[in-house]
Amino acid sequence: MRVFFITKNRGKLIEAKFILGKYGIEVIPLNIEKLEIQHEDIEIIAIYSIKSIKGEKDPIFIEDDALYINALSGFPGPYASYVYKTLGLNGVLKLLEGVKDRSAHFKSVVALKKEDMIHVFTGVVKGRISEDIRGKQGFGFDPIFIPEGYNITFAEMGLEEKCNISHRAKALKKLATWLKNHKS
Amino acid sequence: MRVFFITKNRGKLIEAKFILGKYGIEVIPLNIEKLEIQHEDIEIIAIYSIKSIKGEKDPIFIEDDALYINALSGFPGPYASYVYKTLGLNGVLKLLEGVKDRSAHFKSVVALKKEDMIHVFTGVVKGRISEDIRGKQGFGFDPIFIPEGYNITFAEMGLEEKCNISHRAKALKKLATWLKNHKS
Repeated sequence: MRVFFITKNRGKLIEAKFILGKYGIEVIPLNIEKLEIQHEDIEIIAIYSIKSIKGEKDPIFIEDDALYINALSGFPGPYASYVYKTLGLNGVLKLLEGVKDRSAHFKSVVALKKEDMIHVFTGVVKGRISEDIRGKQGFGFDPIFIPEGYNITFAEMGLEEKCNISHRAKALKKLATWLKNHKS
Repeated sequence: MRVFFITKNRGKLIEAKFILGKYGIEVIPLNIEKLEIQHEDIEIIAIYSIKSIKGEKDPIFIEDDALYINALSGFPGPYASYVYKTLGLNGVLKLLEGVKDRSAHFKSVVALKKEDMIHVFTGVVKGRISEDIRGKQGFGFDPIFIPEGYNITFAEMGLEEKCNISHRAKALKKLATWLKNHKS
């Protein structure tokens, strides 16, 4: 069994291969353009994206995620990757200087297209923004996100440990279970 | 002569009515949803938006703008309105604390649809981000943007003064001139 994954992000691909691999599902990356709309609801963004994909590859999915920092009214939200490229980790830490409430959550949305039907799977992980940049693993905001119940950031965890608890792993596991139950 | 303007922003409507009114063009606001994609090129966003509009209203335009702060690698860029709602003016000032280069520019893109053809008009104004929030006029980032050659922010100017120099006024004047030259 195999599924196509539209992504340019090597870190996401590694996690998807790791998780879906455990279910015996092969992940084939596709580096093609997808449409991303501006919307505060990441599920709407993901559904638009997968609907915009033309072609014969089936089943095929995309994965979008967002980081919501409570003290910043949810910023950077769905624009996390743009904010990562411009402000970087240090910019986000600067915005939180002197701020007591560092609570945040990550949300992942997987949108799958299979036989022209669209299915959406989500995962959330709560946590807080660290005081400084810690760890070399993972990607994106991983070095400043400490999941609830932990004292280390995602970037200080190994792949296996992160994939036990992460928002993306939760969504990908739902995808894998669904695919196993809907073999064509 | 009249033109439809899709906007929910009262400030933009006032400026459009003021500028196009000088050319004898009536601006009729339409409060309808438009699609906004995520893209670093604001012209692409505007073209997608105007293409997504269905209906018989003609000619019809939208206006998008972006604020690019050089020291922040162009942030907030096309996501200025999201950043305004979440971080606010104070968040942007905080990001620039201790930063010497406060240079920035505003860009406006007007996308017009007339008889199923799309036309794009742009305007840019250079300037810098102020040290503090100043002025009560205008909207959005106006209270922290000082245009080149001035010592006051857009929000400290009257409508007429701002419309002599602003990015949006430049784009709207190009739109007005084009409409006058292409009466149907």
